[in-house]
Amino acid sequence: MSRKFRKSPPQGGRHLRDGPRQPIAFYFDFISPYAYLGSVGIERIAARHGREVDWRPMLLGISMFKVMGLKAVPDTPLKGTYAAHDWPRFARYLGIPHAPEARTQFAPLPAARAFTWQKERDAPLAKQLAQAVFRAHWGEGRDMSMPEVVAAEAAALGIDRAAILAGIEDETTKLRLRAHVDASLAKGVFGAPTFIVDGEMFWGADRLDQVDRWLATGGW
Amino acid sequence: MSRKFRKSPPQGGRHLRDGPRQPIAFYFDFISPYAYLGSVGIERIAARHGREVDWRPMLLGISMFKVMGLKAVPDTPLKGTYAAHDWPRFARYLGIPHAPEARTQFAPLPAARAFTWQKERDAPLAKQLAQAVFRAHWGEGRDMSMPEVVAAEAAALGIDRAAILAGIEDETTKLRLRAHVDASLAKGVFGAPTFIVDGEMFWGADRLDQVDRWLATGGW
Repeated sequence: MSRKFRKSPPQGGRHLRDGPRQPIAFYFDFISPYAYLGSVGIERIAARHGREVDWRPMLLGISMFKVMGLKAVPDTPLKGTYAAHDWPRFARYLGIPHAPEARTQFAPLPAARAFTWQKERDAPLAKQLAQAVFRAHWGEGRDMSMPEVVAAEAAALGIDRAAILAGIEDETTKLRLRAHVDASLAKGVFGAPTFIVDGEMFWGADRLDQVDRWLATGGW
Repeated sequence: MSRKFRKSPPQGGRHLRDGPRQPIAFYFDFISPYAYLGSVGIERIAARHGREVDWRPMLLGISMFKVMGLKAVPDTPLKGTYAAHDWPRFARYLGIPHAPEARTQFAPLPAARAFTWQKERDAPLAKQLAQAVFRAHWGEGRDMSMPEVVAAEAAALGIDRAAILAGIEDETTKLRLRAHVDASLAKGVFGAPTFIVDGEMFWGADRLDQVDRWLATGGW
């Protein structure tokens, strides 16, 4: 454990039930419709348990292609066909907006950089921006590839359009996002959505029920 | 729709609630601990809804490697590490026996052939055999690679040991299993466990809750 943890009250696992509670870590990539589903589901669950959610960007383009040697789901025979049918069905199951025609292959980097830039300035507002991007792309079918459309979502939330456009292009932002991706890989995060609850990792929107039970019981 | 469906009573979706009910199709491969989890979960759910489960063998070695171009989960960086932690946790969640030390790479073909051979003679007994193999390998950590150990499980269920050993080696059995695998691919089945409920496909043990809801409501 690092020094900062040793100086803190007991952390991790069952201790947390009576101690300070760390936020739930939520790793996401805008490219994934399942991350969209997970983003809605985890906030619902966290709210029920009085927990915060810390949104953390990762990139499937790095974890899946470069580290794991896999292909994108839409490019995978059979699985791609299934996912195209499955994710809208899952969205109906959760009762959230969904646009089955949404482009599965778009450029998530501008939005990921916008989030990264905004989170260092105002984390709750960055989360709102991410939620707006997810909803626009997967909920309403509006392609969120271009910096300009991401900036328009940001502007609707009161964020300065020119500032976030500059932030998206800033070399510092790119390096910060890369550092976030490296950190996610160092924790073993490979897919999106991934949730880490009191040190326990769960991968997949279809594990929300287990996350819920973990929070309720302290683990099993 | 094919001719046989047109001549039958209404099939599929909500009609089934008041009509004849097809069994739930359960596609499995002994190589997958998640198929083991799914095998227990789907029988529980089917029993609650008064439905039968039709066990159908498939081979991830064909679907994942040859058709989809993926690697085995244990060989996939990060994902393999996660799965080794996840499946025993999932087994505890379901409250079923689990042997975290069970070999992830073993030869599932002899057991798949034994099941195929036995199902043509006595399907309920074949299911019992499959359940015994799953439990022995993933629940108790006994390697089920060899025909002799599969035959021993069969013998414990009253199946003739010499007969099933001959059945495992029979060319007809091998061709039948191959036909089952081809049929699963033709339906778009690529992973294990996969469940088909009234024409609707669900992949993954973590979708048992959605299968349950589909059976309860007729779909959404």
